[in-house]
Amino acid sequence: MVQVLNLGSNRSGVGRLRRRSEARRLDILRAAARVFRRRGFAAAGMREIADEADLSPGNLYYYFSGKDEILYFCQDRTLEQLLAAAAAARASGAPLPAQLRAVVQAHLRCMLDELEGATAHLEPEALPDELRRQIVVKRDAYERAIRALVAEGVERGAFAPCDPALVTRAILGAMNWTARWFRPDGPQPAGEVAVALADYLARGLAPAPSSKGGT
Amino acid sequence: MVQVLNLGSNRSGVGRLRRRSEARRLDILRAAARVFRRRGFAAAGMREIADEADLSPGNLYYYFSGKDEILYFCQDRTLEQLLAAAAAARASGAPLPAQLRAVVQAHLRCMLDELEGATAHLEPEALPDELRRQIVVKRDAYERAIRALVAEGVERGAFAPCDPALVTRAILGAMNWTARWFRPDGPQPAGEVAVALADYLARGLAPAPSSKGGT
Repeated sequence: MVQVLNLGSNRSGVGRLRRRSEARRLDILRAAARVFRRRGFAAAGMREIADEADLSPGNLYYYFSGKDEILYFCQDRTLEQLLAAAAAARASGAPLPAQLRAVVQAHLRCMLDELEGATAHLEPEALPDELRRQIVVKRDAYERAIRALVAEGVERGAFAPCDPALVTRAILGAMNWTARWFRPDGPQPAGEVAVALADYLARGLAPAPSSKGGT
Repeated sequence: MVQVLNLGSNRSGVGRLRRRSEARRLDILRAAARVFRRRGFAAAGMREIADEADLSPGNLYYYFSGKDEILYFCQDRTLEQLLAAAAAARASGAPLPAQLRAVVQAHLRCMLDELEGATAHLEPEALPDELRRQIVVKRDAYERAIRALVAEGVERGAFAPCDPALVTRAILGAMNWTARWFRPDGPQPAGEVAVALADYLARGLAPAPSSKGGT
């Protein structure tokens, strides 16, 4: 606790420098994510990322060795946030449909607000083998977390009988597809989209009251 | 009717040639879609497409002027099929949830069976401006068709109150995302995936019987 407080103080020059450097790296990741979103990863250049981050190219290389490393950190940071949100939802003890809605909303907030859409985490193929493997491991862990939530709900009767793996992928698809159409400057705020999609995606798992109804 | 029968006869040499040429073009589109799926559009080469289609590169250029034209015809053919399926569902007079399930199943069959996944229709950005515009017009028409189905269902009480544009995009996302994970040689047949996803996506629109339930 004392240590945590000390992180905020000016006592340690090294600590301050590290915090400043971390903040700078985060600024760069956000700037890079905007460029990736605008131009696609393949077409984005280090010079353009430097411009967007208001740095000289030389200065940019001080923080990141290249485009691959930037993409890796974008994806890694996003997946860490998603995993943390899923863990928090599971630990909340809330009813399972509420847990699922919380996970979906957190995922969408992360995609639509954070890092300018964080669309970058959708392109692990662009990474060199070793970095891609690390991202795929985390991505799979995240998918398993959602699948376990769905499976538990089915088992306990909180969700309709279904194939949890398939429904999890449908949910991930509906969420990740927002990267294709959501515009931060569009008419609908990210929070509204997140709530509406979470409602729809959770409702698809609601157990049938009696029959499935046919109208 | 007589004319239809004549299409199958050998009476017209020109007709026969045209049919043969059409069939050849379709074979090439399927082969190209396999290459696009395997390698991504950017990395795919005309020589590789020719190999996959069992043609010499020269012969391939007789049918298509280049990779852009092949991608355009892949996307155009897929969208024509999707539009036709949506029109057929609307014309069926079936209850609206059944219409929606039919559209979703047709879309998924088209993505998972036809043209080796037809993933190509997901990358209109790869096309030159003029061709892309034509694809985007058709893609928008298809999205509007699904949105109109959802909106009509909401209006008539067959679907739960929702934002039809948003739900339509969630449905499209869940369907199109299958291109990322479905493996034709995997354990689950395409037809099974199509039915299960259609059930889940339609259930999300089922009107609440009384309250939304919270467990």
